Amino acid sequence: MKHFTSANDSADPLVLARQTIALKNQKQNFEHLGRSKTLGLVFFNPSLRTRMSTTKAAYDLGLNVLVLNVNGDAWNIEFEDGTVMDGSSQEHVKDAIKVMTGYCDIIGVRTFAELKNREDDYTEPVLNAFLEYSEVPVISLESATLHPLQSLADITTILETDISNPKIAVSWAPHPKALPQAVTNSFLQWIKFIEAEVVVAHPKGYELHEEFTGGFELTNDQSYALDSADFVYVKNWSSYSKYGQRPPVSQNWTITSEKMAATNSGSFMHCLPIRRNVVAEDQVIDNSLIYKQAKNRETAAKTVLKNILEDINE
Amino acid sequence: MKHFTSANDSADPLVLARQTIALKNQKQNFEHLGRSKTLGLVFFNPSLRTRMSTTKAAYDLGLNVLVLNVNGDAWNIEFEDGTVMDGSSQEHVKDAIKVMTGYCDIIGVRTFAELKNREDDYTEPVLNAFLEYSEVPVISLESATLHPLQSLADITTILETDISNPKIAVSWAPHPKALPQAVTNSFLQWIKFIEAEVVVAHPKGYELHEEFTGGFELTNDQSYALDSADFVYVKNWSSYSKYGQRPPVSQNWTITSEKMAATNSGSFMHCLPIRRNVVAEDQVIDNSLIYKQAKNRETAAKTVLKNILEDINE
Amino acid sequence: MKHFTSANDSADPLVLARQTIALKNQKQNFEHLGRSKTLGLVFFNPSLRTRMSTTKAAYDLGLNVLVLNVNGDAWNIEFEDGTVMDGSSQEHVKDAIKVMTGYCDIIGVRTFAELKNREDDYTEPVLNAFLEYSEVPVISLESATLHPLQSLADITTILETDISNPKIAVSWAPHPKALPQAVTNSFLQWIKFIEAEVVVAHPKGYELHEEFTGGFELTNDQSYALDSADFVYVKNWSSYSKYGQRPPVSQNWTITSEKMAATNSGSFMHCLPIRRNVVAEDQVIDNSLIYKQAKNRETAAKTVLKNILEDINE
Repeated sequence: MKHFTSANDSADPLVLARQTIALKNQKQNFEHLGRSKTLGLVFFNPSLRTRMSTTKAAYDLGLNVLVLNVNGDAWNIEFEDGTVMDGSSQEHVKDAIKVMTGYCDIIGVRTFAELKNREDDYTEPVLNAFLEYSEVPVISLESATLHPLQSLADITTILETDISNPKIAVSWAPHPKALPQAVTNSFLQWIKFIEAEVVVAHPKGYELHEEFTGGFELTNDQSYALDSADFVYVKNWSSYSKYGQRPPVSQNWTITSEKMAATNSGSFMHCLPIRRNVVAEDQVIDNSLIYKQAKNRETAAKTVLKNILEDINE
Repeated sequence: MKHFTSANDSADPLVLARQTIALKNQKQNFEHLGRSKTLGLVFFNPSLRTRMSTTKAAYDLGLNVLVLNVNGDAWNIEFEDGTVMDGSSQEHVKDAIKVMTGYCDIIGVRTFAELKNREDDYTEPVLNAFLEYSEVPVISLESATLHPLQSLADITTILETDISNPKIAVSWAPHPKALPQAVTNSFLQWIKFIEAEVVVAHPKGYELHEEFTGGFELTNDQSYALDSADFVYVKNWSSYSKYGQRPPVSQNWTITSEKMAATNSGSFMHCLPIRRNVVAEDQVIDNSLIYKQAKNRETAAKTVLKNILEDINE
Repeated sequence: MKHFTSANDSADPLVLARQTIALKNQKQNFEHLGRSKTLGLVFFNPSLRTRMSTTKAAYDLGLNVLVLNVNGDAWNIEFEDGTVMDGSSQEHVKDAIKVMTGYCDIIGVRTFAELKNREDDYTEPVLNAFLEYSEVPVISLESATLHPLQSLADITTILETDISNPKIAVSWAPHPKALPQAVTNSFLQWIKFIEAEVVVAHPKGYELHEEFTGGFELTNDQSYALDSADFVYVKNWSSYSKYGQRPPVSQNWTITSEKMAATNSGSFMHCLPIRRNVVAEDQVIDNSLIYKQAKNRETAAKTVLKNILEDINE
C-alpha cells in the first residue's frame, strides 16, 4: 500500500479489515518495523481520538511521531498557484508539504469540509496537495469527503460480530450544527465490500452524493430501514444538494430504545463524539458498539501503518 | 498502588517519600518497566512544570506519552447525566474518558478549582469522572482540592534534610489573584505522616477546610508560626468560607529576610510559580529549597508511575 | 561544544559544516548517544520547520523530546530583576529556566526580535537569560538577532556544491511585513569562514549592523551584486537604523528569471517560508536550493546535538 486515503487505495478493503482483526489478537511485538522512522501528523483541524489512536498505533510499531497543529491564524497557507503572495498567506502549500515530508517517512493529514462551496470540498484541495507534493506515503486522518480510518474500524467492528449477511441500516440523525458528509460517504464506500443488505434512511433534502449511495436501497422512512436490522449505523450530516445547509426536518429522527426494539436485536454504531439524547437516547448509546469502534480505530491505524512500513522496508 | 489521587491512595505515604529519595540516588535503568506502554496526560488547565516533570519521569520508565490539551473552546465536555446535548457540549465525559483510556495504560489528569461554587469544587467532578469511567489507573496531576505529586515532592524534600522532628510553619502569603486551596490542603494531608510540629498561620477569613487543618495548631499570627521554624512552607490561597473570595488583609504577610531571621535557620519552601517580592522577597527565594522541590517533582512522579507499573506488570 | 548560539560557539564553523555533510552520507546509527537523555525545546514564538527538523534530529540521536510552547497569554514571564510581581507576570525567567533545565539534558530556545526597540533586541534578553540560568547546554533555535542552525544548513548547502571560491550575492527582497535581521546577520557571520567573494545588496535605509557586514562589499545596486554570482542568497529584513521600520523602496527588488540570467547559472537560496512572486518569481523558486537547505536543517541540528552529546558523555 502506497497511500491510504480511501477504500480505493487498498487492493481489497476486506483483507485490510481481516488483518485488523488478526492484529488485535496478536501478541507479537512489531516495534522493529518503524524503528528509526518518523510519522508526521499534520492537523488542519483539531482532533482528539484520531490523534490519540494514530499516535498509539505508531508507538506500537516503534515509530517516532511529529505532530503539527496548523492553526489558521498562525500560519496561513496559500493553495492557489501563481499568486502574488503579498497578503496574509505566509507559505505556499507546495513548499510547506515538500519541507514537512522531507523530515518524515510517512505523513498523515487531517482536514475538514468547510461546507461553504461543494466543489471546493469535493475536489479535496488539501489532501490532493499532499498527494501531489509529498515525497512519502500519505495517510488521510479524515478529509473533506471521506474518513477511511473510521470506516476500516467500522467494518472491522461489524466483521468481528460474525453475523453473516447482516441487514445494516444507515440512518441520519439530528444534530445542532451542520456537519460534513465524510463519515457516511466513507462508510458506504467501505461497506460495499461486505456481503450485507444496506438500507440508507434520511429525511428529504439530505440525499448524499450518488457515488456513495449508488447500489444501496434509499428511503425517507427511518422505521423501514430499522426494521429487523442487525446494525444501526447512525450519523448526522448536512445537505449535499443545498450544500452545507440544514433543511427543516418534521419527524423525530433521534434513535430511541423503542425504535431499536423493532430491529433484530440490532447493534447501534456511531463514530463519536456523540450528542447524547439528540442523536440517540442514553440507553441506546450505553448498549452499543461505540467503544469497540473507538478501540478499533487504534488497530485500524496500526494495520494501515504496518502495511505501509512493510512496503517501505521492502 | 491502583490510583494516585491523594495521600489516602498509598498504604503508607512515608514509604513513598523514602522510595523517592532512594530512586534519586539509584543509577539503575528502569526503562523496561514501561516499555510498550503508554501514559496519557489530559490537561483541562495549562501546565508547564507538571507536564515536563511527569513526561520526563515517564521517559525514564520507558513509557510512551500521549498529551491531550483540552481547550474549553475547542471541545466542550458535558458532565451532567441525562442531558439533551443540543447546546455547546460536544461530548459526554463518560464517552470521552472511556475512549481516551482505551488508548492508554495509565492516565494522568489535571484540573483546577473554578472557585465559583465550593461544593462543585470539593466534590471533584472531573477527577471523580475519571475514577468512575477510566479502565486504567488514574494519576492526579492536581485536582480542584489536592495536589498529591507536589506534596510527595515536598515531604521528600523535607525528609532529605534529615532534620528530626522539625517545626514546620505553613504560612499564607499575598497574591494578586484568587488561587485554589489545593496545594496547602494537600501538603497538610501528607505532612501528617511526618513526625513534626506543624503550625498553620493565615489572616482571619482564610481558614481552610477542617478536614485538612484538624490536629494542627492554627494561628493568625505569622510571627508566632515562624518563630524557631525549621521549614517555612508558604502559599497563597483564597477564602474557603467566603468561597474563592479575597477578604482584606491588614498586615503584611510577605516573607522577608527579617522574618526568616526569627526562624531556626529555617528553609523557605514554595511550590512555584512564585510572585517574587509579593509572596516573598528575592533574597528569601534565592536561598530556599524551591529548585530542590521542583526537581523532586520529577522523581515523585517516577516513584508513583513505577509503583503503578509494577502492579500492572504483576 | 558547550552551547550553540552563534558561529562563535564553534572552534571552527567550517568543520561543523563538513561534519554535517559527512553525517548526511553516514548510515551509522547514533541512537545510543542520546539514549535516556532529554532535549527540551522552548518556543516563545511559533515554529514549524525548526521544531520538526530539530525533533527529527533528536529522534535520530535517540533523545527524548519535551516541547514547551510559551504562549504569552497563558504564562507571562518577568525578565526584570527585583520587580514586585503583583501585575500580570506569573513567573520570573530565572525560576522558569532553572526549573525547566532541571528536567532536561539539553535545552533549545526560540525567540524573535520584537522590532520595537533596537537595544532590547540586540542585547538578546531571552537567549542570554537561558545562558545565565540554564544548568545544561543551550541551543539557539533562532534568537532576536541570529539564526545559527539556519546558517549552518546554508553554508553546508553551499559547500556541498563543490564550487570553489564562489561569488555569493546576498540580496534584500520585498515582503509585506517588517521582518527581523536575524537570518541575514547570521548568514554573514557564518559565510566569513568560507573562501568566497561576498557582495551584499539592499536599498538605501536597509543597512545592517556593521558587526555583520564589516569586510564585505556593500551596494545599493542589485544587478551589480547578481552579476556572475554563483549563489543568490535572498532575504527580506526591516531597517536597522530606523529600527523595525520599512523605508520606501523605489525599484523592484523581486528576484526574476531575467535577473537570474545575469548570474553564473547561479543557485537561488532562501531560508523559507517564502512569499512567492513577492520575494522571487515562481520559476526562480522552483529551480532553487530551498528544499536542500530545508533538509539540511535536520542534519545541521543533528550535527550540533551530536557534538554536544559527545561532550556530555565524555
